[in-house]
Amino acid sequence: MISDTCQELQFLTGIRVVDFTQFEAGPSCTEALAWLGAEVVKIENPKTGDPARRVLPGKAPDDPWYFHMFNANKKSLTLDLKSPRGLALAKDLLEKADVTVENMAPGTIERLGLGYDDVRKLNPRLIYCSIQGFGTGSKYEKGLAFDMIAQAAGGMMSVTGEPDRPPCKPGPSFGDTGTGMLMAITILGALHERQRTGKGRRLQVAMQDAMLHYMRTCFAVQARTGKAAPRRGPKSVMGANAPSGTYQCKPNGANDWVYIITSRANPEHWARLMKLIGREELIDDPRFATGEARLRNEAELDAIITEWTRKHTKEEAMTLISGVGVPAGAVFDTMELHSDPSFEKRGIMQVMDHPGGPFKMPAWPVRVDGAPPRVTASPLLGQHNAEVLNTWLGLGADDVAELKRQGVM
Amino acid sequence: MISDTCQELQFLTGIRVVDFTQFEAGPSCTEALAWLGAEVVKIENPKTGDPARRVLPGKAPDDPWYFHMFNANKKSLTLDLKSPRGLALAKDLLEKADVTVENMAPGTIERLGLGYDDVRKLNPRLIYCSIQGFGTGSKYEKGLAFDMIAQAAGGMMSVTGEPDRPPCKPGPSFGDTGTGMLMAITILGALHERQRTGKGRRLQVAMQDAMLHYMRTCFAVQARTGKAAPRRGPKSVMGANAPSGTYQCKPNGANDWVYIITSRANPEHWARLMKLIGREELIDDPRFATGEARLRNEAELDAIITEWTRKHTKEEAMTLISGVGVPAGAVFDTMELHSDPSFEKRGIMQVMDHPGGPFKMPAWPVRVDGAPPRVTASPLLGQHNAEVLNTWLGLGADDVAELKRQGVM
Repeated sequence: MISDTCQELQFLTGIRVVDFTQFEAGPSCTEALAWLGAEVVKIENPKTGDPARRVLPGKAPDDPWYFHMFNANKKSLTLDLKSPRGLALAKDLLEKADVTVENMAPGTIERLGLGYDDVRKLNPRLIYCSIQGFGTGSKYEKGLAFDMIAQAAGGMMSVTGEPDRPPCKPGPSFGDTGTGMLMAITILGALHERQRTGKGRRLQVAMQDAMLHYMRTCFAVQARTGKAAPRRGPKSVMGANAPSGTYQCKPNGANDWVYIITSRANPEHWARLMKLIGREELIDDPRFATGEARLRNEAELDAIITEWTRKHTKEEAMTLISGVGVPAGAVFDTMELHSDPSFEKRGIMQVMDHPGGPFKMPAWPVRVDGAPPRVTASPLLGQHNAEVLNTWLGLGADDVAELKRQGVM
Repeated sequence: MISDTCQELQFLTGIRVVDFTQFEAGPSCTEALAWLGAEVVKIENPKTGDPARRVLPGKAPDDPWYFHMFNANKKSLTLDLKSPRGLALAKDLLEKADVTVENMAPGTIERLGLGYDDVRKLNPRLIYCSIQGFGTGSKYEKGLAFDMIAQAAGGMMSVTGEPDRPPCKPGPSFGDTGTGMLMAITILGALHERQRTGKGRRLQVAMQDAMLHYMRTCFAVQARTGKAAPRRGPKSVMGANAPSGTYQCKPNGANDWVYIITSRANPEHWARLMKLIGREELIDDPRFATGEARLRNEAELDAIITEWTRKHTKEEAMTLISGVGVPAGAVFDTMELHSDPSFEKRGIMQVMDHPGGPFKMPAWPVRVDGAPPRVTASPLLGQHNAEVLNTWLGLGADDVAELKRQGVM
């Protein structure tokens, strides 16, 4: 999709990434680099490719959507890393690369002969990156992890869900993409340093450790209360303001709720909200006149606000409340977000033009001089075999044909 | 805390950041740059400073923990931006800066005279960054946002919580820190480009838009099912595997649960788990022999596994299950994570040495050649006034004294 709402970004032009990642934590990291203009070559098993190509169950031979999400703008090169020739080619590519990232099960990359100690000798300028479930030195360091495991062991589930009920998993895949983003930041920092020093670095992050970074408000609450941060349903773990939380809207569907917050830092929020809902007399009512009083009488206050929100749809409520300068947000579901034309108009959602059919998906959401980077198709398995071997290593069509015959790619 | 488990990183040495941010979305971004070695100067109101210095309610005059979390390793300079002299000094600093970041309410930075169109003229090399609640061009673009508003309006709450119950807010502050990380990545990309082009850029991100980036697995589920992604309690929104989810452990406390996943991509997980719990006979039982059968009989299967997990604590269960190569994670709460010495030993948690008292907090979790960057104290309000005005602008002690007398700082 070519339009002035997106652009081909060249922030990282010339940066070459050899990408051994699979599923999401690793691929989300290298995809961020691809969106910023790096040349990311995804090394895939010639027979099956990244298991994320078939991560969803179902009758169709191919469930491509999950793969599209985390592999846009990359190239695919198939290599059998267990064959001597495939391994040698991977090493040749690493010699030409600036960055390599892997998130295989603990010990796997070393068994392949591509561990840090082997690879650093090939290319001392390389930024060598590993994403694991648990940190080196942790008693769980050999443990496997997926998104949910990181969210459980990193504290997120303990603070998500209703009070007095079992923990819930935050629906989004913070365990994976949340980790990938921290590695991407560190890679870009290491590249910056390398321009001065000429030296590569070894970067490692564990998914459990990465979750702590996103849990800092919860740790702050614990510092204040002396107790583990609680589950508070729709309310903030910080629990510092009232009114604050979700309020039901018509027509009372599963997601017909609007989030409203009145901030302590800005006492006008409270007065503005009461004026809007026609309850100006409550602004100075002793039950609600101070922040402390409102927290004490929170249930009563929530009922008063709900009386008003129930007369409106969530969109109406959001528009009216945010229109008077009080923070408000409807609880939108994926279908509502997907169908809202504003996101596509602004380039925040883009349609990937893929041989398997067009696919609308979230793009990199940061705008650069007004436009986010353009989403291009996720690669077919082995789509860039000839191109990459030629431009990186100078191999010709005959070499590629021979490698295919040998089953190396 | 000086030890070999952390180090002073110099990735961004020489990069100067003028930081107009407050609360969390902005500060988490600039703090990431500070941890990587940038010189981040936080511009604060001389009277009150960042409102995050007093974000928590309570009787104490100061609730410093939230502020520590997002402002470690920064410098503080107080400036009254509404005074002509204060504004002029801010402009002088921007002339010397590489990056500036703000997350004020929509329109505020422009009213101060520090909007993009004013500042680009001062310094065409500057990376100028704004974080807002809603994107320019969105019908909510003037709306205020906090973390919870972004999580509601960005889809996260719609997929978090139990089925047939109201939406919950993921406990961690993804709306804020999740957004800050995407801006940090883009800033580092823009700095990389600038080394080639010599030109600055304008970067903008909206918190609602940023949430879509973390919602991609949920959008992939919608692509498959044709319906909005659902709430599934502790289970994955993708719903692709069984057994998978939380299983209760002894002694049945609020967070005594262990997450277990058996992956479709690796059918051995299923067999390993059954062997471990002594139910080898179920591996080929027709009720459970295939991925489809296990999904169909998920409830029965969950009961069988719970029979075993209830005999173990969550730590025992995690150790045993991950020990046989099946992904497992206990639902740890903030107190358990805070008390586990492994994090401090590995530099993932560090003790900030602050005049107000020592404070243990999560550090930047990515290790560089084995050690994460060192956490240093968050600044006292105006702590670096003299230092910054001297090293950046050449002002002397007399100038600083005069500025104080005038109430500019």
